[in-house]
Amino acid sequence: MNVAVVTVGDELLTGDTVNTNAAWLCGQLTARGVAVERVTTIPDDVADIARVVNEYRAEHDAVIVTGGLGPTHDDVTMAGVAAAVGRNLEPHEEAREWLTGEGGYSAEGLVDGTTELPARARMLPNTEGVAPGAVVEGIYVLPGVPSEMKAMFEGIADEFHGTATFTTVVDVDEPESELVDRLAEVQTRYDVTVGSYPGESVRVKFTATDESVLEEAAAWLASRVDLIEEE
Amino acid sequence: MNVAVVTVGDELLTGDTVNTNAAWLCGQLTARGVAVERVTTIPDDVADIARVVNEYRAEHDAVIVTGGLGPTHDDVTMAGVAAAVGRNLEPHEEAREWLTGEGGYSAEGLVDGTTELPARARMLPNTEGVAPGAVVEGIYVLPGVPSEMKAMFEGIADEFHGTATFTTVVDVDEPESELVDRLAEVQTRYDVTVGSYPGESVRVKFTATDESVLEEAAAWLASRVDLIEEE
Repeated sequence: MNVAVVTVGDELLTGDTVNTNAAWLCGQLTARGVAVERVTTIPDDVADIARVVNEYRAEHDAVIVTGGLGPTHDDVTMAGVAAAVGRNLEPHEEAREWLTGEGGYSAEGLVDGTTELPARARMLPNTEGVAPGAVVEGIYVLPGVPSEMKAMFEGIADEFHGTATFTTVVDVDEPESELVDRLAEVQTRYDVTVGSYPGESVRVKFTATDESVLEEAAAWLASRVDLIEEE
Repeated sequence: MNVAVVTVGDELLTGDTVNTNAAWLCGQLTARGVAVERVTTIPDDVADIARVVNEYRAEHDAVIVTGGLGPTHDDVTMAGVAAAVGRNLEPHEEAREWLTGEGGYSAEGLVDGTTELPARARMLPNTEGVAPGAVVEGIYVLPGVPSEMKAMFEGIADEFHGTATFTTVVDVDEPESELVDRLAEVQTRYDVTVGSYPGESVRVKFTATDESVLEEAAAWLASRVDLIEEE
């Protein structure tokens, strides 16, 4: 299973907010064996949302959209997603029932837009806030407030699953440029994916679907490099 | 001027790394009056890089690409950018001269790939690391290591400029759903962009190109809401 993550919000594009939602979702999905192939941030704009979501749903098994839910004029994500799938935005009876029942809101207090979802969407209750999420044609729409987003994702996490992968890291005490040949060779010898991330040391990260192959590959490299000495 | 930011790296898509580079670049560009219209994270894959960069350069005044520079097998960003513009990746004489001169590296110690840039690209020296950056057809290619990326961007920052905008924030002590009408009205009355960001309070952010209009709009709203009391 592979997914694209779309984070909606002008505050992300101006640098006012660091996109920790994306990192959290990527970690959750990776842990479930799901490959995240794109993470894209777009403005609070119906046409942009419709276009990017429509493109991504054609190319990925699922699209997770976060941000831009709620009652105010700059909350246009549901309208964008509705446009992406060619449906109307409609008052959603189940969303209204949930909000006035379990949610504890008064029917008069609910602003119209709050309970509008793309027609025939599945409603995702928001246990931490007001605006409900939705699922429609493989597009999962979640709030942008981190506590709300996380609680809502955990309610649907079982719908995301892929091939389990294993990872391990070898911290190397040599310049990355010296490692080129050995990194190429370990990838040739073993069915693993290898990433190298230079910092104070070079973090070499192995990923594989077979745990014993992973361990053999990491041991092969570890015996051929200067390792960071553990304190 | 509008730009798209492309961050390359499997470590971002697995959630191992939070994309602070993107937030930093967005902040720098916004401060220069440049509109960031997309931030997209893609894998260390030549075809993905070529495709996304090629699409974005057609739609934006400039594209800034970070990450995936260097000598190892997973550093394929220069190859992806070269493919996007239909040029070969070639040894770059100026990059080699800079590295063996000001950079202080020995010619023998340089791994081949380090000095290869898209043909006829402008080289951007890396004052904080080895791998040089490049500019080609409005595509700026920077390293992913934050200290290297920031130093390189600061060397070219003058090439990014747009309409200066002013921003101010009003912190409101009311539920966001209660503010809907007043937020809509202030946008009708004044030539400003208004975003609302709920948290412990509702942060209402005004953006405008005319500072006096900005102040009038913020004052209009501030006199019509419950403000957070300053300690």
